[in-house]
Amino acid sequence: MASTKLSSSDLKDILEFTTALARRAGALILEGSEAINSASLSNVEEKKNSVDLVTEYDIRVEKLVQSELKAKYPTFQFIGEESYSAGKRDPLTDEPTFCVDPIDGTTNFVHGFPFACISLGLIYERKPVLGVIYNPFLGHLYTGVKGQGSYLTRGSAAPRKLPLSSDPKPLPSLNQAVIGVEWGSDRCETTISAKATSFARLAGDPEKGVAGGRMAHSLRSMGSAALNYAMVAQGGLDMYWEIGCWPWDVCAGVVVAEEAGGIVTGSHEVFEATKNTDQFGVVTEEILTGRKYLVVRGIGSTPEESGRKAQKRIIEEFYKTVIDVAPN
Amino acid sequence: MASTKLSSSDLKDILEFTTALARRAGALILEGSEAINSASLSNVEEKKNSVDLVTEYDIRVEKLVQSELKAKYPTFQFIGEESYSAGKRDPLTDEPTFCVDPIDGTTNFVHGFPFACISLGLIYERKPVLGVIYNPFLGHLYTGVKGQGSYLTRGSAAPRKLPLSSDPKPLPSLNQAVIGVEWGSDRCETTISAKATSFARLAGDPEKGVAGGRMAHSLRSMGSAALNYAMVAQGGLDMYWEIGCWPWDVCAGVVVAEEAGGIVTGSHEVFEATKNTDQFGVVTEEILTGRKYLVVRGIGSTPEESGRKAQKRIIEEFYKTVIDVAPN
Repeated sequence: MASTKLSSSDLKDILEFTTALARRAGALILEGSEAINSASLSNVEEKKNSVDLVTEYDIRVEKLVQSELKAKYPTFQFIGEESYSAGKRDPLTDEPTFCVDPIDGTTNFVHGFPFACISLGLIYERKPVLGVIYNPFLGHLYTGVKGQGSYLTRGSAAPRKLPLSSDPKPLPSLNQAVIGVEWGSDRCETTISAKATSFARLAGDPEKGVAGGRMAHSLRSMGSAALNYAMVAQGGLDMYWEIGCWPWDVCAGVVVAEEAGGIVTGSHEVFEATKNTDQFGVVTEEILTGRKYLVVRGIGSTPEESGRKAQKRIIEEFYKTVIDVAPN
Repeated sequence: MASTKLSSSDLKDILEFTTALARRAGALILEGSEAINSASLSNVEEKKNSVDLVTEYDIRVEKLVQSELKAKYPTFQFIGEESYSAGKRDPLTDEPTFCVDPIDGTTNFVHGFPFACISLGLIYERKPVLGVIYNPFLGHLYTGVKGQGSYLTRGSAAPRKLPLSSDPKPLPSLNQAVIGVEWGSDRCETTISAKATSFARLAGDPEKGVAGGRMAHSLRSMGSAALNYAMVAQGGLDMYWEIGCWPWDVCAGVVVAEEAGGIVTGSHEVFEATKNTDQFGVVTEEILTGRKYLVVRGIGSTPEESGRKAQKRIIEEFYKTVIDVAPN
């Protein structure tokens, strides 16, 4: 089969189509949220456990997005929760491949906590190249295309280039950082205690008895991986760490964050193996599917240090602080 | 001095004035955020430590709000960070008393994480009676007046009565709850380790080794006490727990949450002392100034249990789970 070639202009067309589709999906997500809020929680099905909720609307949004994308781009591949559940974990090809989470932040969606979104990513030649993230609760649309920048459109306002700060600030150390973290859906003792210890070290004051404490400005948890990436791209979070989420949770966010000057890496191990190579900052298949992610915002260069070197330094400091666990 | 009497109609007038003032303050907060994002972080002063930031705009917003309120309501009292710092900790009187945080969520404000607000409360006859919370980043305005309901106005949309769900859902136990928690500004070992353990218990799965685990749906941290109260009022959070914040962080939120059917209590000790009395659910001076707060959203009554009884049961379950610490 001849492989599909995508030009920069093709990506623009795909962005236009997927943005319109994301807005339609968003309208359905809002409708679902209103319906759920008028109903009783007992109607809500459970998936893996009570943390991992799926609703009728989750499926409806997925069907809408899948059918529209398949009709418009019949030759494109798909990876997502559905294909993984069906055991389809073939390696990536060079073909254009959609990587979509119809509702990211399902718990938020179910509870009416206004941080849920559709996360729609496109992989091409094994790299994320396009991302659309739309939060219908706040009317926030984030878009990014490889090499073409990323943008935030709030409501009917004009799109603003990301990051919002035209002149990204330096980030001297973790103790100046606001860090996105999540409690996730894996609640076993090993994971929860590793996370609690890691978060306590990030927040704790080493001068007040917290061994290894970094005294970060603070930690935030909003419950959506895609929106955490978007917030890093925007500059509202300095970084975001995650273990256990999936390619479709982060694929769109990777592009939005990278195009805003952010850098994405994988596990501590992957970071160590790549940090002094030209692969540092390249989201390989290993990183995309590795279920361990760290993203750092664009950092302003100073006379002493390039922004890229500063990002690497912050990641080193971060991985010295936190405890690794296996995703479950 | 003759005491000022406030009628229900007076409160309506005060609401109108304070809402307009909150919007002006919000515009200044936004202007400040843009200014800070165009400047370097090194311009930002530090207060108690790097977590507890104060900026020029914090002071400007405070001056705007104070001067306008004093000009319009010259006989009203004030309590706030400024009066506390000056050592003015006189007991509450029956007089109308403004209780204002000009910028709640200062860390967010400084970092451009869009959860900062002005929190403007009024105490009368020693009880919170009016609250206005405005987040200019999202254009979300929350208002509440004792006995007159609470409302959310998003952008230019019509106000919606709170909670957003017309028929508040039951809340069978913590394992169905999304819970707001914060890492706060007290980062000593005692506090951080108590919080980390408490959060781990709330999130952890008792069937997977977490002793005392409650397996809550999830934990959220947005970094603004006032907006956490507002989110509980809205129904997006089921509850919010805080140790260490101040009356001006919660005063407005108390009214907004209560008028949406929520209940506010203080420390575990205060809760135990009041839970079987007619003081349960009354925000006394002891609770308002006690720096330990727990708020639970309105819960739908079932044939088996009234909503109020369900709130009490959830608070009991919660306080059995978490570790108390002294505010610092």
